[in-house]
Amino acid sequence: MFYNALKNECPLQIDPFKALVGPRPIGWISSLAPDGTVNLAPYSFFNGVCDSPPMVVFSSAGRKDSIENIEKTGEFVCNLATWELRDAMNVSSAAVGSEVDEFELAGLEKIPSTMVKPPRVAGSPVALECRYTQTVPMVGVDGETLKYALVIGQVVGVYIDDSLIVNERIDIAKAKPIARHGYMDYSVVTELFRIERP
Amino acid sequence: MFYNALKNECPLQIDPFKALVGPRPIGWISSLAPDGTVNLAPYSFFNGVCDSPPMVVFSSAGRKDSIENIEKTGEFVCNLATWELRDAMNVSSAAVGSEVDEFELAGLEKIPSTMVKPPRVAGSPVALECRYTQTVPMVGVDGETLKYALVIGQVVGVYIDDSLIVNERIDIAKAKPIARHGYMDYSVVTELFRIERP
Repeated sequence: MFYNALKNECPLQIDPFKALVGPRPIGWISSLAPDGTVNLAPYSFFNGVCDSPPMVVFSSAGRKDSIENIEKTGEFVCNLATWELRDAMNVSSAAVGSEVDEFELAGLEKIPSTMVKPPRVAGSPVALECRYTQTVPMVGVDGETLKYALVIGQVVGVYIDDSLIVNERIDIAKAKPIARHGYMDYSVVTELFRIERP
Repeated sequence: MFYNALKNECPLQIDPFKALVGPRPIGWISSLAPDGTVNLAPYSFFNGVCDSPPMVVFSSAGRKDSIENIEKTGEFVCNLATWELRDAMNVSSAAVGSEVDEFELAGLEKIPSTMVKPPRVAGSPVALECRYTQTVPMVGVDGETLKYALVIGQVVGVYIDDSLIVNERIDIAKAKPIARHGYMDYSVVTELFRIERP
């Protein structure tokens, strides 16, 4: 099947784009409003974008709480979403008011971060403490401003549960990270394979 | 374990950042130089960033062939890297001169795209034909310009192998997409699970 996406000619009932780009890592992002209200929300338009220094990006559809908080207070934490935490992650994705603390909504325990103010998710084995660096508005091919904007941050502190460290390396499969696909679909990583560099 | 990434205080021999953000989808990107030379290279700092219209981003470490070509000729294709194509994908990641056609290097067949000039990978069941929209230089928290830059494009044409379409939806597990982790590690998606929205 081929379709022209510019002309919205997709013959399928539901646009398949999100099913075609994946598995998408989930940035489960905690942030603080200026008044101290905690926010937690999962983003799957998320990834690393630089390794030295470590940088991450996520794309926000409109002015959600995360982007508002991060632009105002300059900090956030990317928690790893795991198989064990999948239901809590899902609860934290609910469209609720900015006064709602999604840690409480999802029954999650907070742990203070080390180098930034937003707390991390207690049960998550990886937390990347980040400082906000820039927001990038996006434009389409016709020059129109889109509702999504990129939020970029630099990782300043890294928490890793010791159980993931094996022979000086991270065995991320032990964390069973989950990933997003299209529709309501997810996958879980329980096994890795190696390919040597050419 | 916790370490200060600003001060490079990671006690592990190899920086674990790429192992901590994942699974990362692979944008296996074909592009054309102004003289028509074909380039193909995998990027795992890659993701969707907008769904309507469909937009993708990848992060390039320095002035590699893909970013040079895309800025000059304005088009690229994101091919899906699959389990079956894993060795060819790996061969195409070799650091070779800009005169080298990685399709030939990896023994891959080209198929003409429909709406853009760069060809797609014949054996890949998904190809997103894109028009370049912008390059975003990145800065670190200290204001220094980083070697990575984001390349953003809008998906204008979508090819999907009919075998992936089941009841009007994409069953991406049938394509066995592979994903990147740290070190030489990859994972493969062979199964999906569902979580209903809260």
